[in-house]
Amino acid sequence: MRRVDWSVLDAAAREQVLARPDALEAPGRADDVARILADVALRGDAALRDYTRRFDGVDLASFEVDSAAFDAAEAALSPVLKQAIDDAADRIERFHQAGMATPYAVETAAGVLCERVIRPIDVVGLYVPAGTAPLPSTALMLGVPARLAGCPTVVLCTPPRPDGAADPAVLYAARRCGISRVFTLGGVQAIGAMARGTGSVPACDKLFGPGNGWVTEAKRQVAAGPRAVGIDLPAGPSEVLVIADAGARPAFVAADLLSQAEHGPDSQVLLLSDHAPLLDAVAAEVERQLECLPRADVARQALASSSLVRVETLDDAFAISNRYAPEHLILALRDARGRLQDVSAAGSVFLGDWAPEALGDYCSGTNHVLPTAGAARAYSGVNVASFQKTITVQEVSRSGLAGIGPCAAEIAAAEGLDAHRRAVTLRLEAAA
Amino acid sequence: MRRVDWSVLDAAAREQVLARPDALEAPGRADDVARILADVALRGDAALRDYTRRFDGVDLASFEVDSAAFDAAEAALSPVLKQAIDDAADRIERFHQAGMATPYAVETAAGVLCERVIRPIDVVGLYVPAGTAPLPSTALMLGVPARLAGCPTVVLCTPPRPDGAADPAVLYAARRCGISRVFTLGGVQAIGAMARGTGSVPACDKLFGPGNGWVTEAKRQVAAGPRAVGIDLPAGPSEVLVIADAGARPAFVAADLLSQAEHGPDSQVLLLSDHAPLLDAVAAEVERQLECLPRADVARQALASSSLVRVETLDDAFAISNRYAPEHLILALRDARGRLQDVSAAGSVFLGDWAPEALGDYCSGTNHVLPTAGAARAYSGVNVASFQKTITVQEVSRSGLAGIGPCAAEIAAAEGLDAHRRAVTLRLEAAA
Repeated sequence: MRRVDWSVLDAAAREQVLARPDALEAPGRADDVARILADVALRGDAALRDYTRRFDGVDLASFEVDSAAFDAAEAALSPVLKQAIDDAADRIERFHQAGMATPYAVETAAGVLCERVIRPIDVVGLYVPAGTAPLPSTALMLGVPARLAGCPTVVLCTPPRPDGAADPAVLYAARRCGISRVFTLGGVQAIGAMARGTGSVPACDKLFGPGNGWVTEAKRQVAAGPRAVGIDLPAGPSEVLVIADAGARPAFVAADLLSQAEHGPDSQVLLLSDHAPLLDAVAAEVERQLECLPRADVARQALASSSLVRVETLDDAFAISNRYAPEHLILALRDARGRLQDVSAAGSVFLGDWAPEALGDYCSGTNHVLPTAGAARAYSGVNVASFQKTITVQEVSRSGLAGIGPCAAEIAAAEGLDAHRRAVTLRLEAAA
Repeated sequence: MRRVDWSVLDAAAREQVLARPDALEAPGRADDVARILADVALRGDAALRDYTRRFDGVDLASFEVDSAAFDAAEAALSPVLKQAIDDAADRIERFHQAGMATPYAVETAAGVLCERVIRPIDVVGLYVPAGTAPLPSTALMLGVPARLAGCPTVVLCTPPRPDGAADPAVLYAARRCGISRVFTLGGVQAIGAMARGTGSVPACDKLFGPGNGWVTEAKRQVAAGPRAVGIDLPAGPSEVLVIADAGARPAFVAADLLSQAEHGPDSQVLLLSDHAPLLDAVAAEVERQLECLPRADVARQALASSSLVRVETLDDAFAISNRYAPEHLILALRDARGRLQDVSAAGSVFLGDWAPEALGDYCSGTNHVLPTAGAARAYSGVNVASFQKTITVQEVSRSGLAGIGPCAAEIAAAEGLDAHRRAVTLRLEAAA
């Protein structure tokens, strides 16, 4: 990790500290992704079989997981893990349910009732990665809000293991969320299948979930394409920013930095502190904890583009954090609660010494599908509303039209839209 | 307008009736837009001056509207129009305010408090078109929710008139919404300026507003670009779908179809009815009303790709409508209220004979920036939440960590993410 003193950096150097690693800039990737998507759109299931053979190394006659496979997965899992998944699902459900939007109605003028109603998205597609590791937690983070939203059809794609089966923990989590249509499909071909539909996979209205650079590029392309498939977030590599004061525990802070760094070589972690000795102590702890970490190689690569930043004051730290807009923000501060008001852009915030980011990843109840790469400046993390649409409604009586019609006609005239004006005045005449 | 009988059409013919005109497929447009965006990013205000000279035909030394220009605009406007804009703004504000999200907190386990807090997007950019007509109503539809959201900086771009000034009604509406930073900039160059920032225009975190095919393509490109600029909606040409029964008034229905058709040659209007004589009567009324319409030429082009559709039952009509997912849906039905439950995808719905779509465009209180081109399957129209982010927060006590930590550690182990597990177990040991 670079060690820098913010106050002595010039503008260019500061920008460099906060620059994300160029993870998405793989040369030729966009063209490769476009080719695979076009092929899946053209050849459907036959293309899916070819790419699954090529990229996952397995020959699959069909992709959909049947109920016997769900049963086998459930039988294979340890009771402790099943209980952990159940408990996590319960807390995720409690938190997400409490934040659900409700319909409302307002009489904006006499005889003019305006409403907002809420409808689930009809067909949603969830992507659950299983590259370096299967992620049952992601199945919960997408499946629980999809169920709360009431989506009639929930499709889940997850890459097959070398034996052709889906990961049993992912299947258990999917069933726990009531998802019955699970396909052993990964990568670009899975996104293409859900975006356009094939003989076996339903075409989805919106796609969700994290993924590697290939999956991300595929989601970007289908979202920009003509069918207007929605996507949850412009995903990128995982990241954490920690703001720590003199009282923070170096071992805890180091563990939190490493738990993001182990995600991938393009992950980024930042520590900001107004207390230089803490930065020293954390740097030493990071080295110490790296020694016994299975994924130390991955973490070391991520740390190469990560920084320990000395700031003059905590106010500076919050200004930097809001500019960076981290996916995860840990406030390892004595007054973490009081400082929450200073956070204007972040995906999820962890207050104090006892809230490791890993809790939010799994089981505090919040969602772990969060905006990365600065998208937290404009985007929120996944929640129940991500799986719904709101529709506005107006019910207008004859006298209601008589009341507000002249207002509409006046503005329509100012805009030179005469047919708009006449749709109102024709009724005003009929109502008189 | 084509006249078709849904029940005798095959699948391909049905798809053709519901196909949107290919408005966005202008050859070479994507490259032209990319070139202008890159030039604005590189040369800033100098590029803005060049493009404004080339596309708007005016030479502007500076783009920002000063307070004297706001005053002059206010003085130039008729009291009736000012009152109409004020009244519309009041109703839009009342409706939007009532639907605002609120923070909440849930104790998901003892000592684990999960919250959602709400923050305005810091810098938002609003685009208000003024091509064939200036749209003060759009300034209200974007400016009112931006103010309710509490966005600290609201930027508005609108094309200059031939005399170099902004439209006075747009300026009046902007001031009514408390927007002080207005720029006389249009087209791709305006989007580029707001997406990247120039010497005079602040870089925005999210861009809003409708526009022609060029503006839409520019928004699409900046949203897919590396800076993760948010956009409100993948906008397309305006459209309306009307479901009418035997009791509907042909003159009203025809006026509603024409008020969408006059928007642009690529607009689309559809009428579905189970009552053939109504379709005949509306067809005749459309012809009659077209005679005295200033924008009849535009409307006629739109009608060329529009259809009158005979359906067997109203159930069929709702199935077709939900598949099409119209921006505007008018239910000219005797039981419009009872049928609302059958609507699963639409931008905004108008119930009964006295709710012309033009009311929603201007002053019922709902927003007129709505998903088009089928995006209503996955997207909602603009509302206050469009100008905000939600941030989740977790505050965990030592005993809270002791309670849920083992759950997180178990799932982390299943996912093979050991640093995640250790960030928890390290604390469990310290807490014991």
